[in-house]
Amino acid sequence: MNYKNFPMVPRVIFGRGCFNQLGEILSPKRLNVKAPFIFLVDDVFKGKSWLSSRIPLSYDDKIMYVSAKEEPKTSQVDELVEHIILTTSDRPSGIIGIGGGTILDLAKAISIMLTNEGETSDYQGWDLVKNKAIYHVGIPTISGTGAEVSRTTVLTGPILKLGINSDFTPFDQVVLDPELTRDVPKTQWFYTGMDCYIHCIESLNGTYLNTFSQTYGEKAFDLCKEIFVDNKLSLKDTQDKLMMASWHGGMSIAYSQVGVAHAMSYGLSFLLGTKHGIGNCIVFNQLEEFYPEGVKLFIQMKESHNIELPEGICADLSDNEFDIMINVALSMEPLWENAIGKDWRKTITKEKLKSLYQKM
Amino acid sequence: MNYKNFPMVPRVIFGRGCFNQLGEILSPKRLNVKAPFIFLVDDVFKGKSWLSSRIPLSYDDKIMYVSAKEEPKTSQVDELVEHIILTTSDRPSGIIGIGGGTILDLAKAISIMLTNEGETSDYQGWDLVKNKAIYHVGIPTISGTGAEVSRTTVLTGPILKLGINSDFTPFDQVVLDPELTRDVPKTQWFYTGMDCYIHCIESLNGTYLNTFSQTYGEKAFDLCKEIFVDNKLSLKDTQDKLMMASWHGGMSIAYSQVGVAHAMSYGLSFLLGTKHGIGNCIVFNQLEEFYPEGVKLFIQMKESHNIELPEGICADLSDNEFDIMINVALSMEPLWENAIGKDWRKTITKEKLKSLYQKM
Repeated sequence: MNYKNFPMVPRVIFGRGCFNQLGEILSPKRLNVKAPFIFLVDDVFKGKSWLSSRIPLSYDDKIMYVSAKEEPKTSQVDELVEHIILTTSDRPSGIIGIGGGTILDLAKAISIMLTNEGETSDYQGWDLVKNKAIYHVGIPTISGTGAEVSRTTVLTGPILKLGINSDFTPFDQVVLDPELTRDVPKTQWFYTGMDCYIHCIESLNGTYLNTFSQTYGEKAFDLCKEIFVDNKLSLKDTQDKLMMASWHGGMSIAYSQVGVAHAMSYGLSFLLGTKHGIGNCIVFNQLEEFYPEGVKLFIQMKESHNIELPEGICADLSDNEFDIMINVALSMEPLWENAIGKDWRKTITKEKLKSLYQKM
Repeated sequence: MNYKNFPMVPRVIFGRGCFNQLGEILSPKRLNVKAPFIFLVDDVFKGKSWLSSRIPLSYDDKIMYVSAKEEPKTSQVDELVEHIILTTSDRPSGIIGIGGGTILDLAKAISIMLTNEGETSDYQGWDLVKNKAIYHVGIPTISGTGAEVSRTTVLTGPILKLGINSDFTPFDQVVLDPELTRDVPKTQWFYTGMDCYIHCIESLNGTYLNTFSQTYGEKAFDLCKEIFVDNKLSLKDTQDKLMMASWHGGMSIAYSQVGVAHAMSYGLSFLLGTKHGIGNCIVFNQLEEFYPEGVKLFIQMKESHNIELPEGICADLSDNEFDIMINVALSMEPLWENAIGKDWRKTITKEKLKSLYQKM
């Protein structure tokens, strides 16, 4: 038996309004006046001065607004890295991602690709990154993905949707300010929160689970229930607790893995561009045979929050398109092994996945 | 409002038997062949080859067995540091503490004092350490103190029992192998486990609490209940879960503080040398007015595990001795402020503390 020596985020600040401390946090990390901090910011914050005016800019620091409408791509990382190299005189002092999972994953990937040669897609997989990334900071503005604490950055590449899993991927610093989540639309709040809930269900019901991951997963699960089932919290407590649920849910993956919903949702996302949060929900909704209790509670939460999931998104797909999705899903071997066990290939056939996709 | 940017242990490995991976973890951290790793090991493991033979020694590496019978002292750190400097040709590559809270706190303090001038007692307090400590690793062999994850090392000095609280104090690496706790005697297991339980009660009922600390404290509390109240776990699960309870309980102090039991227990320890775990229990047993629910459950656990606490340990003390204890306890201002609030001086008088100590 060989256990993973898990890299944790070495610095975390939590508190309502702690975003105001970003300047003092970054200042000692500035390499020189020509080495800027690059703030990668979700473009929903463009013109929102309550946030954008508080980004501490000095010298050649830059804000790059990026859309999170689509899932992050390896080609997008390559373009952003090229743009940064061409427009900065020195290698940046750091990359600061301010946004949801898409922006955080882009920030992680860019910080890696600024110190590693070749193309981003070369590093999709496990432990392929050779050089330490540049200093990178994650500041979530929506809660649930766990991207702030994970050792992966999940990207859609030319062949697969797959993470860059490495010890250099985690952020050097995370800023958890629940006030930043104040403008998240209700449906988005639900879908992204369910990403955390589904992490927990997949982790807690997986064969990889150990006590480390279990304790984190149980806490995140309890918090999700408090937030989405009990519905008794103030807005402030809901924001605070969902941010911590996302953190603990992300930590629960340390010695575990996600499962069926994530594997199949990657297929949807690769072919149809379905965003991760809603994709997970669409898939999970059909997984009662794998996660009976988890799906029952999910349906209860969905109804209690008046969420209507899209239906029939696979209705008009060709056989070839089904095959593309199925191949992406089946390539996620660790996820299937975690969910089903070593013998997963006996039950998880192409036909089985097709019949599940057809229900969505 | 200014929030703490909390330093987390950047690497953690968890798993039964993961102690066997210590060699591969340390090897890349060796500075050169003359810079040894110093293994600071609780002397209860002297001659216990199931553990000692698995300590990976190379070149000039050394094992130093240290007794944990007494609480760790600043003078002891000074002596150990002097000994290390005199007997190694280069500054060590790292200090590895293998033991309970006493050994872990000594390892942290030694690693700080190898790079900081003067005496250990100069650094008791908050954020007085100037230079980064040398690489240090914590390997708990008993669970509950939270020393493996905290940013303090609590030492008895010439004037006070007080921690060296600094960003340089936390371990660079923690190895969590629940199998290492297999030989802990029952009473010791209970007292040290209760250190974790009391952390949670003090943290969760404190005025400093925020959601970050609350979620960790709640999880540690739930685990303590599973272990000490429900009594339904296998030995293996008890070991695994108590190790994680200690971890989460330690994390819950990040944005919080301990309270009345710790403040008063520091007094007992300073004057009488009472060990921290049992001292906390002796004090907590008398704190019903401060923590009614917590003490009720504590008494239930104590009875269910047939633990008999020493009584009358303050029976023969002089007024002068009471004053010494009371002054140490009252000097723990953040602990009282957390427990009672800003106005704590109105109710926490010398007379009040004396009447409490007299019951112990």
